[in-house]
Amino acid sequence: MSTYLGVDIGGTNVCYGISNADGEILYENSFKTDSFKTADELVSKIHSDLKRKQPLAGIGIGAPSVNERTQCIEFAPNLNWGDIVPIQKIFQEKFDIETVAVNDANAAAIGEKTYGDAPEMKNFGVITLGTGIGLGLYINNEVVIGANGLAGELGHSIIRPDGRECKCGNLGCLETYIAKEGIVRTAKEKLEFSSGGSLLNNISPSELSPTEIFKAARKEDPVALEVVDLVTKDLAFAISNLVNILDLECVFLTGGIAKNGNLLKRKTEKHLKTLILPNLRDKSFIKISSINDKNSGVLGAIASIHSKVGILLS
Amino acid sequence: MSTYLGVDIGGTNVCYGISNADGEILYENSFKTDSFKTADELVSKIHSDLKRKQPLAGIGIGAPSVNERTQCIEFAPNLNWGDIVPIQKIFQEKFDIETVAVNDANAAAIGEKTYGDAPEMKNFGVITLGTGIGLGLYINNEVVIGANGLAGELGHSIIRPDGRECKCGNLGCLETYIAKEGIVRTAKEKLEFSSGGSLLNNISPSELSPTEIFKAARKEDPVALEVVDLVTKDLAFAISNLVNILDLECVFLTGGIAKNGNLLKRKTEKHLKTLILPNLRDKSFIKISSINDKNSGVLGAIASIHSKVGILLS
Repeated sequence: MSTYLGVDIGGTNVCYGISNADGEILYENSFKTDSFKTADELVSKIHSDLKRKQPLAGIGIGAPSVNERTQCIEFAPNLNWGDIVPIQKIFQEKFDIETVAVNDANAAAIGEKTYGDAPEMKNFGVITLGTGIGLGLYINNEVVIGANGLAGELGHSIIRPDGRECKCGNLGCLETYIAKEGIVRTAKEKLEFSSGGSLLNNISPSELSPTEIFKAARKEDPVALEVVDLVTKDLAFAISNLVNILDLECVFLTGGIAKNGNLLKRKTEKHLKTLILPNLRDKSFIKISSINDKNSGVLGAIASIHSKVGILLS
Repeated sequence: MSTYLGVDIGGTNVCYGISNADGEILYENSFKTDSFKTADELVSKIHSDLKRKQPLAGIGIGAPSVNERTQCIEFAPNLNWGDIVPIQKIFQEKFDIETVAVNDANAAAIGEKTYGDAPEMKNFGVITLGTGIGLGLYINNEVVIGANGLAGELGHSIIRPDGRECKCGNLGCLETYIAKEGIVRTAKEKLEFSSGGSLLNNISPSELSPTEIFKAARKEDPVALEVVDLVTKDLAFAISNLVNILDLECVFLTGGIAKNGNLLKRKTEKHLKTLILPNLRDKSFIKISSINDKNSGVLGAIASIHSKVGILLS
């Protein structure tokens, strides 16, 4: 039986799994990303963990800022492994099998198309909400790679010129407001100016996370509700521009922050109503990815290598 | 010899021309759009003008808000011919020949690909700057139509939530700032608060136009320069988000306002420097369409019908 390795490299965690040709996960594991000083260290660790699980038929890697034309991670603001990391080459040399690297958000879109709710859709997007903000797009039934292999940098689309400083060097990127650190920063700013009494005051600042903030919002905490309102307004703003420009059938939300399911979806939909062009308003919708709990990143990476080595799934 | 009719319907003018299979314009004419109360009146007028120039091999129509799936103009905020105008059907029945309707900005993109500077490009955009703001996109070497045939509404992407009221019903659309009326409105607002002495004060308010404003800016008029700076900043903002998300090789500018060539390009490029993601900054560029003077709208409409009836241009 042929088995495949899918690796999902995120700013916080590296998750990986082995599946059969049907996409059924047979083994999975994960590490903290910052426990590795270099990509070589990470690959050696995974290789030794999987020593008894080989031979594999191929490896798919999903990572932020992957240039799909060069197969390198290039200037990833949320990873500290150097400016240019030849991630595909490092894996391929260590394991000595066919390997493909794709942008993590493109991997999520390929996963949604293969295992999720988009098999029939020709024009859709998947937004990854986590340490960073990514976008995988299918247009005319094809993944969008871009002229230089760098498409999908939704997190670095600017929503407030002269806004918050971003790791990429620009000011006001979407990511600085609605990715993990940005949400926490907004909450801290709001707490400073609140009169106290917020549930969030009971959490030590270093423990404050989007999960805790959404949890407090569900309990009607006014500061948390205000933060969720601001975050979903910015997210709706980004989604509306995608839909107005690309006329997408659906935008899926995935990643850690999307696990705040219904509240995130409901508030974002409320804001979308005044932002999407009237004649598209009833035609396009958002959806929390149904494969999010099953680690869409790993599944997407596996779907990517499957499609590369020509194995038909389904 | 087969000849084709291209019709470019804009918010201000309707231009049309007949070409041979090489795209060489043999006859052209234009009318003011608001001199027709209905699309039927327009089509009758063009039909009688071309009575001696038939038979034609096909008709291509470029118009704003065309839904390419239904072949109707739908809820065009800058036309007053009703909510749903079956423009392709009206032309086809009157002339009794093969007819295709495309979004005006898509027509411009097909024109750029066929007769302009984009024949080798697989990922590029064409922004039409006039009474409205449109966008035609090629991604993976195909025109982007969208899930409902409504892609390209860049003019209705929102740049300032709660900003200026737009004809589409939303607030803060790009179009309300950088299309013709928006630019004039900004100039009037700035003149109100200026201490006088602007060259623009010599122009009667009803005559004020983007052309006059750019002309005054070239003479270093401070109010005009401020307006041009604001307009190009908003335009750069829209372009940067397209490039950051779609990794386009080039964005072409066309339409009436793009005739302010060098000044528009230079100022927009200045703003783009701080808005495009650093690793895309040197890989993508903007260009004033070189076919803009030759009426890219008519050429685009002709290229669209050519491609429909399967005549290969080269």
